Amino acid sequence: MSKEKIPYKIYLEESEMPKAWYNLRADMKNKPAPLLNPSTHKPITAEELEHVFCKELVKQELDDHTPYIPIPQDILDFYKMYRPAPLVRAYCLEEKLGTPAKIYYKFEGNNTSGSHKLNSAIAQAYYAKHQGLKGVTTETGAGQWGTALSMACSYLELDCRVYMVKVSYEQKPFRREVMRTYGASVTPSPSNQTAVGRKILQEHPGTTGSLGCAISEAVEAATSREGYRYVLGSVLNQVLLHQSIIGLETKAAMDKYGIRPDVIIGCAGGGSNLGGLISPFMGEKLRGEADYRFIAVEPASCPSLSRGVYAYDYCDTGKVCPLAKMYTLGSGFIPSANHAGGLRYHGMSSTLSQLYDDGLMEAVSVPQTDVFAAAEQFARVEGILPAPESSHAIKVAIDEAMKCKETGEEKTILFGLTGTGYFDMYAYEKFHDGKMDDYIPTDAVLAESFKSLPDVK
Amino acid sequence: MSKEKIPYKIYLEESEMPKAWYNLRADMKNKPAPLLNPSTHKPITAEELEHVFCKELVKQELDDHTPYIPIPQDILDFYKMYRPAPLVRAYCLEEKLGTPAKIYYKFEGNNTSGSHKLNSAIAQAYYAKHQGLKGVTTETGAGQWGTALSMACSYLELDCRVYMVKVSYEQKPFRREVMRTYGASVTPSPSNQTAVGRKILQEHPGTTGSLGCAISEAVEAATSREGYRYVLGSVLNQVLLHQSIIGLETKAAMDKYGIRPDVIIGCAGGGSNLGGLISPFMGEKLRGEADYRFIAVEPASCPSLSRGVYAYDYCDTGKVCPLAKMYTLGSGFIPSANHAGGLRYHGMSSTLSQLYDDGLMEAVSVPQTDVFAAAEQFARVEGILPAPESSHAIKVAIDEAMKCKETGEEKTILFGLTGTGYFDMYAYEKFHDGKMDDYIPTDAVLAESFKSLPDVK
Repeated sequence: MSKEKIPYKIYLEESEMPKAWYNLRADMKNKPAPLLNPSTHKPITAEELEHVFCKELVKQELDDHTPYIPIPQDILDFYKMYRPAPLVRAYCLEEKLGTPAKIYYKFEGNNTSGSHKLNSAIAQAYYAKHQGLKGVTTETGAGQWGTALSMACSYLELDCRVYMVKVSYEQKPFRREVMRTYGASVTPSPSNQTAVGRKILQEHPGTTGSLGCAISEAVEAATSREGYRYVLGSVLNQVLLHQSIIGLETKAAMDKYGIRPDVIIGCAGGGSNLGGLISPFMGEKLRGEADYRFIAVEPASCPSLSRGVYAYDYCDTGKVCPLAKMYTLGSGFIPSANHAGGLRYHGMSSTLSQLYDDGLMEAVSVPQTDVFAAAEQFARVEGILPAPESSHAIKVAIDEAMKCKETGEEKTILFGLTGTGYFDMYAYEKFHDGKMDDYIPTDAVLAESFKSLPDVK
Repeated sequence: MSKEKIPYKIYLEESEMPKAWYNLRADMKNKPAPLLNPSTHKPITAEELEHVFCKELVKQELDDHTPYIPIPQDILDFYKMYRPAPLVRAYCLEEKLGTPAKIYYKFEGNNTSGSHKLNSAIAQAYYAKHQGLKGVTTETGAGQWGTALSMACSYLELDCRVYMVKVSYEQKPFRREVMRTYGASVTPSPSNQTAVGRKILQEHPGTTGSLGCAISEAVEAATSREGYRYVLGSVLNQVLLHQSIIGLETKAAMDKYGIRPDVIIGCAGGGSNLGGLISPFMGEKLRGEADYRFIAVEPASCPSLSRGVYAYDYCDTGKVCPLAKMYTLGSGFIPSANHAGGLRYHGMSSTLSQLYDDGLMEAVSVPQTDVFAAAEQFARVEGILPAPESSHAIKVAIDEAMKCKETGEEKTILFGLTGTGYFDMYAYEKFHDGKMDDYIPTDAVLAESFKSLPDVK
């Protein structure tokens, strides 16, 4: 083994850190389909979007031709606080598995938000501040995105209002407390603060909320208040753009040591991590400069790519957001109580959906007890206690490494380790106690859910 | 500002990582007083200690003359999994404070145990494995040490039995679950598993346990079982030896960039972090090669250095462990429910006690609401959400930086950031809700507690 040659952890020097984000869409022949106005079903205009999102972010959202977008100096400085993230050679895991494969992971969990979400949170907060806004609103389910946004806003002294799905607010008080530490206001959703919240509370008095409902409340809170805009942590093109920092750093670190991955694996909920990780590699593939296998890993309970349809759909349950063309299970799909909260979204980023539809990427879905077993196996040899979301990628990386053990192939496997599971110990407890279920929706359930798709000509 | 010159984070290369621990006692003219046999009050022998501790660790415990002890390769490999720890230049904090001081911190929280405890856990587990033992036992209060030991044992496939103070076991189920993830057995203490546990349960049926009681149970569990030894995460000389990796890495990183600290600050409970951080710097001071100010920061509720007496005392409530000469509040001292669980110990490492008694180090104690206010201020600008223990050092580092602002001095301040507070959000919640109290023991309370000191001639 070349333990001497490749270090356990590769950290770029500050001077080697990327200075621009990479916009994958610029290299796509088949561009992702445009967002549509939910009322007229016509491509949404910048003016329309600017009521909801910051001006500069709207520009980024709609720009599908500029390959590199410079990262403003203030964001670069913030990145230096917790980046570069290490690219880790999983020597211990390889040895434990007895595989000839070489396994690498890009670890994004070394910051208080506990995940890669901070990469886009600081960008979105920066542009809001730059526009002279007072604050931003958002929703959060599991809490990673809300935490990341709170941190970014606290740094820039911007007001941050988070609508947190009520069941998470109650079951994850510690996440809520982290957000309060960073000065955010956290409201359990549905709430009495918004018209849509009051309406839902009236219709479903005992509801514990949903991500779709929290999005609708956050959008209303932003658009009905002077000096506020709404921000979102996944799905959008702008988010994939900011998250390209993950892939760019990974590629720079690999290039530095002459490493070339054969297969690149990431968990996929809305697509923020996977899209960011694969961006520069997929760019090479699109330009015909190199070839890689890409695998999106989804929970079996919410398999938008592997079992969804490619169609225009609502992004939120309240149907106030633009329509996006994506692989979707239908906005009416109710994901089961899978513990990977960050992967419980009915749709997938338009960019990733298009790449998948073009056959440039694979997708698999895995049941959650297998995911937690892989998580525990990983934790015990690599030390890091992974987030349930990230563990989806671990599961498939281990599967691929075991295939190499059978065939004797010395493949290089790269996966994204998006974050840590410190706030997910309740889920680990269920796993340890053998109380975790593996719900998989039947075809009939999905067929019913597809009926909620809008009729777009 | 020289932002261009000194990076935000200094990571040593793997090749620059220390290959040997530094044994500070070798350079001390006044050696720390020897451990005494609790029955005979005579210096304890290696043979006696070997019933409780591993052979090689006993050797390290008693060795006060060898300056450098090589780190075995297996431990070096494990260190590479989560080390080198970054030395961070707190540019953002400096700017926020408007101080001319240059602030650095060594961050030990980037591993799942969440603190520096892993540095000694892997060493102690390694020597147990090397001796052919089946397993180790220990106690844990807040849970950092128990987690660290679980991780180390899981890596080495060694059985790990943790006695966790019952109140923590119940109030910190997530810490317990992390240990279970790493395959440790975790028993709430006092338990029915040991004679001492049964005795205590009979005498105090409703007790929620204490660290002193958990130590006694863990020692009994080790000494009454074939192939087991007891391990301890702080106070001992061997622990300070292993933790010297903190200071050695810090010094190497500073030397690389020509940085020289004026003042070095660390939180102090049993002394594991502070002793490790200051070791190589104190060595220079002892050898007359350089001068530094050292400040130990204690909780006002448990001020062993600042308000204790320097005397031989019991290390545990059960009085089964050797006697140590140390600054102590008396083994009968009941620390209040301060949220920095890791600092709630009645005594202080013999080595640090001797240095303090020789006037080579200062000590201050701070109330916990001030500590949490500093923690929050730090989190908002530096991103990292610190552990309550570490925040004691932050509080005094900020105080020192503010003095520089008054005087205009451009001092270089170094402090140890021992860990993260992800499992301490209940304490943060109390702080946010204004429900945190600042108990400070009266002189009368301390005088009463000193009566529990043994009569050693």
